[in-house]
Amino acid sequence: MTEIVAQPMSIEAFALFGDVIDCAGDPDKIINQGKCGRYHDRAVMDFSDGHAGISLFRAEPRSFPYTLELLERHPYGSQAFVPMSEHGFLVIVAPDVGGKPGTPLAFLTEPGQAINFHRGTWHGVLTPLHAPGLFAVVDRIGDGANLEEVWLDQPVTITAPPS
Amino acid sequence: MTEIVAQPMSIEAFALFGDVIDCAGDPDKIINQGKCGRYHDRAVMDFSDGHAGISLFRAEPRSFPYTLELLERHPYGSQAFVPMSEHGFLVIVAPDVGGKPGTPLAFLTEPGQAINFHRGTWHGVLTPLHAPGLFAVVDRIGDGANLEEVWLDQPVTITAPPS
Repeated sequence: MTEIVAQPMSIEAFALFGDVIDCAGDPDKIINQGKCGRYHDRAVMDFSDGHAGISLFRAEPRSFPYTLELLERHPYGSQAFVPMSEHGFLVIVAPDVGGKPGTPLAFLTEPGQAINFHRGTWHGVLTPLHAPGLFAVVDRIGDGANLEEVWLDQPVTITAPPS
Repeated sequence: MTEIVAQPMSIEAFALFGDVIDCAGDPDKIINQGKCGRYHDRAVMDFSDGHAGISLFRAEPRSFPYTLELLERHPYGSQAFVPMSEHGFLVIVAPDVGGKPGTPLAFLTEPGQAINFHRGTWHGVLTPLHAPGLFAVVDRIGDGANLEEVWLDQPVTITAPPS
């Protein structure tokens, strides 16, 4: 079975797949009489012929080693995951190789980071590592079959990043 | 000085102003081989001639009693606040009375609740009550003056809900 080591989330390494939404750098604007920093418009969202919606996902926490069997993508829209807790979570993506997912990569976010998968990016299902596993999801609301799933011929084992 | 007691967040009482985004009721869909519940499309978003964006707000935590001096509204778009922590926060809104804010109401959310102000709703600035005061904000990205502010003639004191 293929084994992949999760790596700490990196804006650069993740850029091919999506956006890391965090407070890196200075705020773009200070608002509310100096009491709030705005880190402005940090994700490339695309809902094609649909529109943006906010849903909540409550997922069962997983643990390392994690067995990856399925990758999916949404051809008609981006999908952002915002953790409603102060825990990092596991993010799995894969490049597209001729319409199928290539070798996956796994990232472990820091607390305080959300992520956004660009439209059509192959990714694993939501994998929190801690309770409550609660996320706000900003994705496309609209008609049509906005889900493609691929079961892997061989499961991939994702192991924890070196501590 | 007028004093207002914050009330526990109520979907019904808040409905005139916006949406409570939480996991009330059964999930609309079970996904990911039974491991995740999707609470689908829980906010009425409206970005007029702009589009949806995700920004992060990092705000200084406040405490009770809180002195409200300013209300604001966004004429061209809704604005959702998703706490990236497991803490409730203070939400202040006011009805519109002839183009100015009327008597404000204050709500204290439960952990695990996000909120969405409908387009044009008078509201107070972001008021977390706990560190880290970190929120994902889904609001309108676009041109034009999307902010109206009104300083109150008399500040309003918001006190904690009865425990």
